[in-house]
Amino acid sequence: MNKYAIVVAGGSGTRMGGHLPKQFMLLKNKPVLYYTLKAFLGSYPDLQIILVLPADFTDMGQEIIDAYFDKERIRITAGGDTRFQSVKNGLMLVEKESIVFVHDGVRCLLSADLIHRCYEAALSTGSAVPTITCKDSVRLLKEDGSDAIDRNRIMLVQTPQTFHSKILLPAFQIDYKDKFTDEATVVEAFGLKVTLVEGEESNIKITKPVDLLMAEKILEERSGI
Amino acid sequence: MNKYAIVVAGGSGTRMGGHLPKQFMLLKNKPVLYYTLKAFLGSYPDLQIILVLPADFTDMGQEIIDAYFDKERIRITAGGDTRFQSVKNGLMLVEKESIVFVHDGVRCLLSADLIHRCYEAALSTGSAVPTITCKDSVRLLKEDGSDAIDRNRIMLVQTPQTFHSKILLPAFQIDYKDKFTDEATVVEAFGLKVTLVEGEESNIKITKPVDLLMAEKILEERSGI
Repeated sequence: MNKYAIVVAGGSGTRMGGHLPKQFMLLKNKPVLYYTLKAFLGSYPDLQIILVLPADFTDMGQEIIDAYFDKERIRITAGGDTRFQSVKNGLMLVEKESIVFVHDGVRCLLSADLIHRCYEAALSTGSAVPTITCKDSVRLLKEDGSDAIDRNRIMLVQTPQTFHSKILLPAFQIDYKDKFTDEATVVEAFGLKVTLVEGEESNIKITKPVDLLMAEKILEERSGI
Repeated sequence: MNKYAIVVAGGSGTRMGGHLPKQFMLLKNKPVLYYTLKAFLGSYPDLQIILVLPADFTDMGQEIIDAYFDKERIRITAGGDTRFQSVKNGLMLVEKESIVFVHDGVRCLLSADLIHRCYEAALSTGSAVPTITCKDSVRLLKEDGSDAIDRNRIMLVQTPQTFHSKILLPAFQIDYKDKFTDEATVVEAFGLKVTLVEGEESNIKITKPVDLLMAEKILEERSGI
């Protein structure tokens, strides 16, 4: 089965306080994006990456590829104004009959195990959405205050959200809606259910300086320093 | 107004993998609990702490107090089987007409600002529950799958959950229910609404080794190392 990872790195990263989008920030002397690409390339030898970048940063992305990776396995395309449009742009490079991973470029610590787990579930059920449980108490805002919700029913959603192309390609033909915060919501709006798989606590999103520090510590732990 | 902080450190900390409850684990050479107690003592000069510990660990708690703090301002009492019972035990030492903070002992990075914010809100409305927004997409499990929920409506609950004693003392006279995961749910079961205030991203709960690493980095950032 063909395998594509659409790595979406469209954010301008204003929350990091710098001018450089967060996917290019350095983590142990390499760009955040380096670790993301490396994880996918290492997971399956026949996996191809479609890297979706803001138009102004495609050159910077190409430099990372040239410096570290096999050019044959990674293509770059420009993103759109929304995540939905960015993924849609990436999907134009996907051939039919494949498993497609859609992943946040700034979730750079995902493991090969997680990628394999998503692949297997998407192969057998059509979809795989990794989630983790919530360890905090949770409240739901309503018009006149808020309600407690049983935290055991709340799942925090991660990526790679993984789908068979025969589901994802037609789903992305529907009209954009504001509620499309991820691919699962698009597929559901298209009328299908999604399968949840177990995510990873360490599969964090780098959005703030403290996340970069945490990522550094996780990498140090993994390499046994 | 009298001020009491009930610091609940009843957990046995099995998720840390060690035998020592996590509130006693070392963070930059001092127990986690040291930082929690210091934050409260530093926030208001007239605040008193009621430290609720598992019965087997009250001696260890006393050693921390003897080593670092003014004994007059901290009393220790033994916890119960549930968080509800532990808080109830702590409340037995609270005098009437006070503002009571109930805080997780393992949330050791809270700031004086947060404590002040909770105090002011509890003084004017009777309650203050700090919450932060959720940056992940969220799904709610149901019997036959899961539903996406608008993440802007989801609030993650922190502590110190802060109440006027005239609310908290009678609320804790009601019978225990399994859904009591925090003080807000007790107060609501008693028939009152709670006020949400802004929490802090860095007010993390130390429950896993990686949290200890993150706490270390946050402390280093704060001290400008």
